[in-house]
Amino acid sequence: MSTITKLNITQIEDGRSNSKSTKTPLSLSSDLIINATNCLSPTTDLHGRTYKDLIPYSSDMNITKTFLQAILNMILKYIEELNDHESPVIKNGLRTPNEYRQIFNFDIDQKGVDLNEILYNTEQILQTSVRSGHPRFINQLSQGLDMLSLAAEIITSTTNSNMFTYEVAPVYNCMEETVLRYMRELCGWKNGDGVLAPGGAVSNLYAVLTARHYAYPDIKQRGVMNSPRTVMIISKHCHYSLKRAAALIGLGIDHVIEVNPDQTGRVRGQDIENQICIAQQQGLKVFFVGITAGTTVLGAFDPIDEIAQICQKYNIWLHVDGAWGGSALLSSKTKHLLNGLNKVDSFTWNPHKLMSVHLQCSAILFNHPNILMNVNEMSAGYLFQPDKHYEITLDTGDKTIQCGRHVDVLKLWLAWKGKGIDGYAEHVETLLENARFLYEKVKSKAPYFLTLMDPPFINVCFWYIPPSLQNIDSTSLEYYNRLDKIAPKIKERMMTSGVMMVGYQRLDHYPNFFRAIVSNPATTKHDIEIMIEQIHMFGKDL
Amino acid sequence: MSTITKLNITQIEDGRSNSKSTKTPLSLSSDLIINATNCLSPTTDLHGRTYKDLIPYSSDMNITKTFLQAILNMILKYIEELNDHESPVIKNGLRTPNEYRQIFNFDIDQKGVDLNEILYNTEQILQTSVRSGHPRFINQLSQGLDMLSLAAEIITSTTNSNMFTYEVAPVYNCMEETVLRYMRELCGWKNGDGVLAPGGAVSNLYAVLTARHYAYPDIKQRGVMNSPRTVMIISKHCHYSLKRAAALIGLGIDHVIEVNPDQTGRVRGQDIENQICIAQQQGLKVFFVGITAGTTVLGAFDPIDEIAQICQKYNIWLHVDGAWGGSALLSSKTKHLLNGLNKVDSFTWNPHKLMSVHLQCSAILFNHPNILMNVNEMSAGYLFQPDKHYEITLDTGDKTIQCGRHVDVLKLWLAWKGKGIDGYAEHVETLLENARFLYEKVKSKAPYFLTLMDPPFINVCFWYIPPSLQNIDSTSLEYYNRLDKIAPKIKERMMTSGVMMVGYQRLDHYPNFFRAIVSNPATTKHDIEIMIEQIHMFGKDL
Repeated sequence: MSTITKLNITQIEDGRSNSKSTKTPLSLSSDLIINATNCLSPTTDLHGRTYKDLIPYSSDMNITKTFLQAILNMILKYIEELNDHESPVIKNGLRTPNEYRQIFNFDIDQKGVDLNEILYNTEQILQTSVRSGHPRFINQLSQGLDMLSLAAEIITSTTNSNMFTYEVAPVYNCMEETVLRYMRELCGWKNGDGVLAPGGAVSNLYAVLTARHYAYPDIKQRGVMNSPRTVMIISKHCHYSLKRAAALIGLGIDHVIEVNPDQTGRVRGQDIENQICIAQQQGLKVFFVGITAGTTVLGAFDPIDEIAQICQKYNIWLHVDGAWGGSALLSSKTKHLLNGLNKVDSFTWNPHKLMSVHLQCSAILFNHPNILMNVNEMSAGYLFQPDKHYEITLDTGDKTIQCGRHVDVLKLWLAWKGKGIDGYAEHVETLLENARFLYEKVKSKAPYFLTLMDPPFINVCFWYIPPSLQNIDSTSLEYYNRLDKIAPKIKERMMTSGVMMVGYQRLDHYPNFFRAIVSNPATTKHDIEIMIEQIHMFGKDL
Repeated sequence: MSTITKLNITQIEDGRSNSKSTKTPLSLSSDLIINATNCLSPTTDLHGRTYKDLIPYSSDMNITKTFLQAILNMILKYIEELNDHESPVIKNGLRTPNEYRQIFNFDIDQKGVDLNEILYNTEQILQTSVRSGHPRFINQLSQGLDMLSLAAEIITSTTNSNMFTYEVAPVYNCMEETVLRYMRELCGWKNGDGVLAPGGAVSNLYAVLTARHYAYPDIKQRGVMNSPRTVMIISKHCHYSLKRAAALIGLGIDHVIEVNPDQTGRVRGQDIENQICIAQQQGLKVFFVGITAGTTVLGAFDPIDEIAQICQKYNIWLHVDGAWGGSALLSSKTKHLLNGLNKVDSFTWNPHKLMSVHLQCSAILFNHPNILMNVNEMSAGYLFQPDKHYEITLDTGDKTIQCGRHVDVLKLWLAWKGKGIDGYAEHVETLLENARFLYEKVKSKAPYFLTLMDPPFINVCFWYIPPSLQNIDSTSLEYYNRLDKIAPKIKERMMTSGVMMVGYQRLDHYPNFFRAIVSNPATTKHDIEIMIEQIHMFGKDL
């Protein structure tokens, strides 16, 4: 077991007492300022300097250079620390809001703080952050910290552009068009539509909304009041955002029919078809079937081809949520998991998950050309003037449910450009290999570790069974109740100490279990072994 | 008239021909690499280096440092150029997608490109970008380039966090809570709820959705099918996203009643009340009234206090869209424009507009505590485990319509922290002073310039009347048709040359006119004079 470096909270708190004083300069790590000085500016100290010394308030670039150089040096230090696998995921562990209020002065004052205090605050943010890019952060969003994404985000924020019109973001719009076309080609679609959305939940909302519009184009104008009674059918293991979308569009959760998956987490085509028939017998119109490629907890892939044939038979829109598993399309070894995708109507795919692109980057793709404009168009004349001197179909703003839209494409494009098709295939295959290694390791640790199932993808689900539970009847209620408390307690201890993080949850009739997703390319087999040791160390006395 | 520096497109195109060659190293500006070398790394050349030489693929920090230093040097150069008011807004002017496809190789190749080519691409992006931070970019989103926002975005992307749970973003969640509380206090609310959303359109969607839930809490579960017939009443000058929200939630655009504003762009309380009465007589339930603080085109402020009293009388949810004008609350000289805000139910306010915070940062605020959780909660057990060791109300994910959510708060917090309450008051007052200067200048240029109205806020709306139209009857159809083509043609010429950008649009019965919004603190009175000269120069022969 490695020794975890423990930092002293008083370091942080001492700094904070300075931060309230306006007389003593803050104690920034000297190397940050020294490096900044050496590089780009003769100014050694930002104490007393304010935003008025920055561009554009000052026309002199010196302070701007020193300030941004200090920010860069700070993040380089953070990145270097992150690369030390033995460093903690949360320095000093997770704290309460009141404790963070002791460390930070969150309040806004009448007079702004100087740039030294700004830098002090940003350094504190890095010091106290939950380091999701750390190789031993094996929680939701364990995609690591990708340097190409990071570079892209710096450029994106510098150009501070907006996707809504071609005239302000011509290159980014061309880039998005290219990237979405690549993604659709991987789906096996000749044509289609799509957009980058702020997350998978919004992508799924687009899918539900578009399916409704496809079935009932006059709802946009007239509303649902006098429409036929409609329902959606989804797998019970679909992401909860599909139910939220149903609530949002006025369908109501009661009109979402959930089909139980089988033991492997896959919903069966026959069960979907049965529900379609039952709904039809009740005079309900099924306008949407939703299944998943890579379910949230188990990582299961519903049988797309089988269900697509059923949906074609009944002429029902089929949506596949591949927010997590869509990236399986990137390797020839895994793309078969999505067989039949060429026959579906819409597909959610989040590069910010398995492709390690920084949050937020989610694609909603449609196997129907030009459909989004019909669904969402409002033709706001102040923004999408019909008399522009360029082809107005290049303005993407009127096909989205947003108006202004952040540039999410550059980080994806740059990462894909740099890694290439081969690099991403290798990425997916390495993660799968690590998942397999983790699964075998966990299995070998029986009876203290118990796996839930042979992992269909990268998700590895298992229980830790402490010595105290080894001799209790595993079918008893006592066993269930006690086992249910084990994973939360271990996670609490992990987070309080800060050494690592692994997610857990209940599912169906199962008590709380760990779901380890190693989607960070920085995570090594050694880190995986350490994770197993840590769980045992934190859990053996429970 | 200043001389605009014209750059040579062959510089870009020559570079591009290199980019297709795998043999010749790309010609990056030498100062970028030289600076990077001097600062942080002995490596002089990234040619042949790939992402595999970066963290975490390599454990050596050297290449990562050189690479990110080059990115920083690149953006510093961009920022310095931006500060040269005489430089063009779009170097070489706006081009067609095919022309950008000539400059860039958007395609993803089997094998990734090296880091030199990555840097080459990012430099080209900066070279070809439409420089929205430029002092003479007076189009939508003219908020400038804010160094505190930029620094915050670099830190945000480095921590690559997610707002959905406290456990992964504790400090950012505490920060968001503070900032939203400040904003609510400025609204005059003692209590309430809110969240940062991906843009004003989504904020307005939250408002409509929440108002519906407040009136009919069972719609979430049962859907709207058997609910009473409902309508929304909005001003005709409200942002189009309110109608889009109506389409989205299943209400339908037909159930949005639009009230015409008066000549000053303000909707009258009496007209709203009349529509409420008519709707009630028809048996329709009005669940939502939407008005605006700072309309998109004219910048008009609807009389909030008057309309709030009417809504209280009829017990109807009142939403104010202050995406643009909400920031008037920041100065004691303008906050009276929002008198009565203490009585409304919800309020949209985009710091990414008038507060110069980088895109995307929009707040939706509610004058109702804990309301969002009721509206949106789905209690997904895998993410919002009920048995966490901390207070689960700190997890904001279950009150949003997103699941994962980008950290939008740091850029707002850091900018506010650095500028202080006084700094933002001064910011708003300076922009107003510039708007007043612009208005007076435009008025003084009659008969070639004709103002639409005395500006209620920062928006200054006017026509350019070229000499050829001076002697035509201004009430004739010919005059309307010819004048309608003037602003588009002038803007086309501006964009083709790249020197500057000013927005235009039609409104109601008015032919196309310019709407100049100077919300960039970098824009000077001299820039404003240049803008007027440029419009005349581009338009006088039309």
